[in-house]
Amino acid sequence: MRALVTGGAGFIGSHLIDRLVARGDTVVVLDNLSSGKLEFIQTHLDSGSAHHVLGDLTDFETVLSAMKGIDCVFHLAANPDIRLGTRVTDTDLKQGTLATYNIVEAMRRCEVQKIAFASSSVVYGENAPLPTPENHGPCMPISLYGASKQAGEGLISSWVGTFGIQAWIFRFANIIGTRGTHGVIFDFIHKLKADPSRLEVLGNGLQEKSYMEVEDCVDGILHVMEHSNNALNLFNLGSHDTASVRRIAEIVVEETGCSGASIEYTGGDRGWAGDIPRAMLGIEKMLSSGYNVRFNSEEAIRHTARALIQEIGMPGDD
Amino acid sequence: MRALVTGGAGFIGSHLIDRLVARGDTVVVLDNLSSGKLEFIQTHLDSGSAHHVLGDLTDFETVLSAMKGIDCVFHLAANPDIRLGTRVTDTDLKQGTLATYNIVEAMRRCEVQKIAFASSSVVYGENAPLPTPENHGPCMPISLYGASKQAGEGLISSWVGTFGIQAWIFRFANIIGTRGTHGVIFDFIHKLKADPSRLEVLGNGLQEKSYMEVEDCVDGILHVMEHSNNALNLFNLGSHDTASVRRIAEIVVEETGCSGASIEYTGGDRGWAGDIPRAMLGIEKMLSSGYNVRFNSEEAIRHTARALIQEIGMPGDD
Repeated sequence: MRALVTGGAGFIGSHLIDRLVARGDTVVVLDNLSSGKLEFIQTHLDSGSAHHVLGDLTDFETVLSAMKGIDCVFHLAANPDIRLGTRVTDTDLKQGTLATYNIVEAMRRCEVQKIAFASSSVVYGENAPLPTPENHGPCMPISLYGASKQAGEGLISSWVGTFGIQAWIFRFANIIGTRGTHGVIFDFIHKLKADPSRLEVLGNGLQEKSYMEVEDCVDGILHVMEHSNNALNLFNLGSHDTASVRRIAEIVVEETGCSGASIEYTGGDRGWAGDIPRAMLGIEKMLSSGYNVRFNSEEAIRHTARALIQEIGMPGDD
Repeated sequence: MRALVTGGAGFIGSHLIDRLVARGDTVVVLDNLSSGKLEFIQTHLDSGSAHHVLGDLTDFETVLSAMKGIDCVFHLAANPDIRLGTRVTDTDLKQGTLATYNIVEAMRRCEVQKIAFASSSVVYGENAPLPTPENHGPCMPISLYGASKQAGEGLISSWVGTFGIQAWIFRFANIIGTRGTHGVIFDFIHKLKADPSRLEVLGNGLQEKSYMEVEDCVDGILHVMEHSNNALNLFNLGSHDTASVRRIAEIVVEETGCSGASIEYTGGDRGWAGDIPRAMLGIEKMLSSGYNVRFNSEEAIRHTARALIQEIGMPGDD
């Protein structure tokens, strides 16, 4: 199969490409390298299994030319910095909503039939029951990133209903793991690398969310796609439990060896405007498809902390 | 209060302005007159209660300048031709999603706190339980118009969550009445005016939807806004029952006096790709706010048919 992976040089995309190449697919990687890195997929580029197109999803002609001859699109690219949306309010509109429009419109023009889309638990907004099932409503996102993910879902759903494409929409829990380029564990390690004596944590540390290890995530995507075949398939992907930001801080302090670091909380029930304090996805539908995760939240956090500490490096290492 | 009504020279907008002026508001009407008509609001323009800004919501500077000094936005403007979305696929993206982004961003810049938004039952997509309550999920629209309405809801919801505005989102049933510029009754009258001997109906005529008279709709909007005060307020607005397209065709044939007209169905369970064959909104929440409609679906249809026949004129009239 010939796959197009948007954001394919990024965190989740590069892990997905490992799996796609392993099963024999040829992969076109469309990535503007704003946060992705070619080194993540270098072996596949060298072997010829993957081909990188440097370009931006906001440019329709770029998307159209990358779409030619594709069997299935994995649309993972997005603005990776949710907080940025509160300062530059058209970031998610352009890199999320308009980018997704360009993808589905290019699919229509090129007669590409299948798409998998990386949506997010943030589409559910606040005050959803926990764990949150796929059929929760109304979905009222509180971040601009969440609004763009919901808009992307709607565009894809309308292309299914109007033009007959087939789609898999995945609402992700917090995905963590090697090659991470952002997120709470990544931030904490960088803060401790800069100052091993203290760790500043945004909010009161009581936020509780589900964390899923990235290899569990990409295995889940491919498993679900092989085991569901409706016109539109919607699945939460997550793990069985949650972990608090406070617990993440403790684990990162422990794993970095900064045992004397004081953990300081800025206070408030959320890290930033648009952050959701508590999130946990219902994963019954995923489990019913026959897929289960290897790691629970805390295991995924510790595994990721160790891997990222290796990647980032701490003072005194080597 | 100083209100901004987008699409204020249009069908629903002009009726809303009648009510706003009656209660003493001053109204800024932002309308590109693509389907609206100034004659609908001429008395209010003449009296100085309303002021028209000719401009397009896709132009941010226009929106920004119309937003100055506004207390509450009524955002009704949209692409009125749902079927157009299947041919020109960025119509709803621009006139729906981007227009709504411009509105909320201009609100943020001008510190405008309140917005009422005309969403639609089409956000629920197909296969929703009937009647459909506000908390139905997942919402998977099948038309590009529906996708743009959902995207508009998400943008507004994220501005509530991130920037602290207050919003009322109304998911409308099929709104019909005088000054209608599109829709099934409007189309049928025009077809019979052109050829009184036959009426071609798209689909098999078995589509069943709820119809709400436009004055019931605008009264509902204002009532609900006076009787709900959450940060984000979501209400279906509709009537108690449904009517079939077949029944509408019969009523229009009867009211036009074209009693000899043969009604011919093109076949198929929907009028066009992206049409939803059956729709009925749950209106418990609206009723709980203390608001009830005057007309059921069939009454609204007959009332509208009579009024539109007057407006449009039939051969042999006058």
